[in-house]
Amino acid sequence: MSPNQEYRAINLSAGPSAIPLEVLKTAQNEFLNYKNSGMSVIELSHRSKLFESILSNTEADLRRILDIPANYKVLFMQSGGTGEFAATHLNLMASKLVEDKQKALGTDKKAKCAYIISGVWSKKAHTECLRMGGNAHTIVDGKSHFKADGYYDLPAAAEWDIPNPEETAYVYYCDNETIGGFEMELDTVVPHIDPSIPIICDMSSNILSRKFDVSKFGVIYAGAQKNIGPSGLTIVIVREDLLIRNDSSNGLHIPSVLDYKYFADEGPMPHTPTTFSIYICHLVLQYITKNGGITTLENNRNEKAKLLYNLFDSNPEFYTNPIQNNFRSKMNVVFTLKKQGLDAELISQALENNIVEIKGHRSVGGFRASIYNAVTLDQVRFFVDFLNKFADSHI
Amino acid sequence: MSPNQEYRAINLSAGPSAIPLEVLKTAQNEFLNYKNSGMSVIELSHRSKLFESILSNTEADLRRILDIPANYKVLFMQSGGTGEFAATHLNLMASKLVEDKQKALGTDKKAKCAYIISGVWSKKAHTECLRMGGNAHTIVDGKSHFKADGYYDLPAAAEWDIPNPEETAYVYYCDNETIGGFEMELDTVVPHIDPSIPIICDMSSNILSRKFDVSKFGVIYAGAQKNIGPSGLTIVIVREDLLIRNDSSNGLHIPSVLDYKYFADEGPMPHTPTTFSIYICHLVLQYITKNGGITTLENNRNEKAKLLYNLFDSNPEFYTNPIQNNFRSKMNVVFTLKKQGLDAELISQALENNIVEIKGHRSVGGFRASIYNAVTLDQVRFFVDFLNKFADSHI
Repeated sequence: MSPNQEYRAINLSAGPSAIPLEVLKTAQNEFLNYKNSGMSVIELSHRSKLFESILSNTEADLRRILDIPANYKVLFMQSGGTGEFAATHLNLMASKLVEDKQKALGTDKKAKCAYIISGVWSKKAHTECLRMGGNAHTIVDGKSHFKADGYYDLPAAAEWDIPNPEETAYVYYCDNETIGGFEMELDTVVPHIDPSIPIICDMSSNILSRKFDVSKFGVIYAGAQKNIGPSGLTIVIVREDLLIRNDSSNGLHIPSVLDYKYFADEGPMPHTPTTFSIYICHLVLQYITKNGGITTLENNRNEKAKLLYNLFDSNPEFYTNPIQNNFRSKMNVVFTLKKQGLDAELISQALENNIVEIKGHRSVGGFRASIYNAVTLDQVRFFVDFLNKFADSHI
Repeated sequence: MSPNQEYRAINLSAGPSAIPLEVLKTAQNEFLNYKNSGMSVIELSHRSKLFESILSNTEADLRRILDIPANYKVLFMQSGGTGEFAATHLNLMASKLVEDKQKALGTDKKAKCAYIISGVWSKKAHTECLRMGGNAHTIVDGKSHFKADGYYDLPAAAEWDIPNPEETAYVYYCDNETIGGFEMELDTVVPHIDPSIPIICDMSSNILSRKFDVSKFGVIYAGAQKNIGPSGLTIVIVREDLLIRNDSSNGLHIPSVLDYKYFADEGPMPHTPTTFSIYICHLVLQYITKNGGITTLENNRNEKAKLLYNLFDSNPEFYTNPIQNNFRSKMNVVFTLKKQGLDAELISQALENNIVEIKGHRSVGGFRASIYNAVTLDQVRFFVDFLNKFADSHI
């Protein structure tokens, strides 16, 4: 490979991950002098008119693309899923809704924080709830296959242990488990939860990949580094009535930086945000709008995922995807080789074909192809061809 | 002003702020294809060898430039000062040192969290300590001039109310108040605190501007967006013995994302960091090393600040810097005009001369010129010339 500005890898990283080339080119072109300000976008004060306009356009575009109702706040936070594991818990526990429930329950009973565990990330959220002193409850813990952190199925909702609404602070689940390649179909969770219970959803790795009804959720959050932009930005969509109670004398110990109300009241920038990540997000949303919006993204997603799963299903003697069909992720496609001893060769041949980051997460092994929005249909076709040839030459 | 890639403003923003032009050009040149990877640096997995090398070089360079002793950890966190207001308190309170003190004090007495208040940011840290349930104690609250949030002096240490070491969890201060333009000289605080008390220092806006002895501090933190790089990255330097106690069964309620031990143990990347900000920081540190290191930065700082303060002192009938000489910030130079009604004109004439972001913070009014490392001596000379001419034409 010769040094070449035009050389482009097929980047199947789980995140940070591919960004549309057109967005990268725009960012590069205006990097030294944003809108003739004589400054790079990373040198702009976050209080400058130019940056305020980037931020307000980003929010407006996101609201339009995801059809976010007016009674939801959009917050631009930092610190990703790890931050939100604590933030979702702390903010919900301090909400008036949950406080009222807790009062009715009395001091001898603690409201339950109910988790659907479908992989590493929802498990981590559950652990953080315990760490924060919460009364963590497991609604269901998905079925693991042989590797400790890999899930392949979730029992039917009839078998779930959903606590009564009166004693439940919230229900938490992860819409798409990035490591396990385990994704919820639209009706997997929401219809089974009493509408009076706020649902918290981690959509870090599949937001902007399909249409969904925001109004069904209490809190939706997403780290940017999959479908949105670079790392360092977390988008939180929260129903206004769930913001913590407005009582200045409260003894709440929520750090300001994790406090949704602080962001909502002092917002949109109660403190310096990650300006560059927001700027790239802004360009990505413009790109999405120009290219057909969420419908196009959803169609592309379906087509790309189908190519890969069809390949596995038609080569069962060579490739295995361990996930039950209805939970197969359309963002992170995991697979293993039936034959022993070929893993290193697959990785090195992929590299020779400019295909990078296909190794599975260290906790589950195998392979993972993350085919987020910015991975093109042609790139997936090329990858599928490559896998076909690899199978043919090793059978 | 015609659109022109070469056009460069004199950017005196308080942060996010100027970055060395050479760094920007490097970042632009390699933006589409980092080290012939076929990926932008913002598309790299944080677990990739390329990014791991960026991070380890960044830490090594920072350790060398600041001469950080081996018993200090360097953490790459997010969420800036607002996050650290809570994090410093929570981590110190959970440290073995403070726990032991608290045990000796008994349950009826709460260890004191002692703050030196010299402006908006140290005041905010004090408020966050109260919010987190801490026993906040004020060692000294600097003297305010007429505007609520502007400080002009600090009483001598003999007048400070420093609690006994046995009852003090930590002492916190802000080395340079970005809004007030109020900076501590090297011997202002440290020599007056008993060495058994850990000192927490907010160096967000003056780190990398002068030599100092890291070993005198318990925790030093700095948001990147002044002298280091873009926003979204917070560097924390913490003495190892202050990491929270290693007890897996502890009932500590520190969110993982603010927990120094989580970063130190699982580090350097317990979760996805802000990769682009770290990358620019990496380039900035290389640039610093190539250009004479901390000594050159300190000399330039002194020269730039002297030019501005000399101007004010030689035009006392026109310009006022309200800060006592020994507390004049060499990073954020604040000033007001003696004559009423000229403020808007100064701002518009500055703009005509490509000088931007000189308006003072909304809480204090007046003007502020932030002359961080990336603002060149020539730019400051040009600005001083401009101010001289402005005074001459309005006297």
